[in-house]
Amino acid sequence: MDDPSTCRRYAGMLDYRRVLAENVKAARKALDLSQEALALEAAIDRTYVSGIERGRRNPSLTMIAKLAERLKTTPAALLSPMTQEQTGK
Amino acid sequence: MDDPSTCRRYAGMLDYRRVLAENVKAARKALDLSQEALALEAAIDRTYVSGIERGRRNPSLTMIAKLAERLKTTPAALLSPMTQEQTGK
Repeated sequence: MDDPSTCRRYAGMLDYRRVLAENVKAARKALDLSQEALALEAAIDRTYVSGIERGRRNPSLTMIAKLAERLKTTPAALLSPMTQEQTGK
Repeated sequence: MDDPSTCRRYAGMLDYRRVLAENVKAARKALDLSQEALALEAAIDRTYVSGIERGRRNPSLTMIAKLAERLKTTPAALLSPMTQEQTGK
């Protein structure tokens, strides 16, 4: 379930929950933040962050914008497939 | 309320509902689709499309991905400020 190559497509469409999951995780690690710290900073529940990073959540635009702000990136970057170079800078 | 310069920022954060609104509208018009036609193709309610184009809705990631697919673009493009050149091509 965690292999991107098998999870990226869902019903013929790119699986953007998976894309978001990978990018949030990479951006969080690049900032050396724990899930708890990110959750605290974004004023959301830690289990929600964990759910997003496992591609189990379907967050709203406002939530994606909030996460992007705390991760010092943009919603567009968080939704771009394979943007590790952006999130890792 | 429809002037982007006054609406783009909301609580100190870029107003991404506004960004999405502008980009959905521009992409839809570039494809010469009515709100009704887009709603039908994306299997959502026309009033929902209208609400998104007025920045009144807070759609989920899945909904954004669905709209992007029908508009022949990507969620990242729909959430990028001032991407008229992308949506218009």
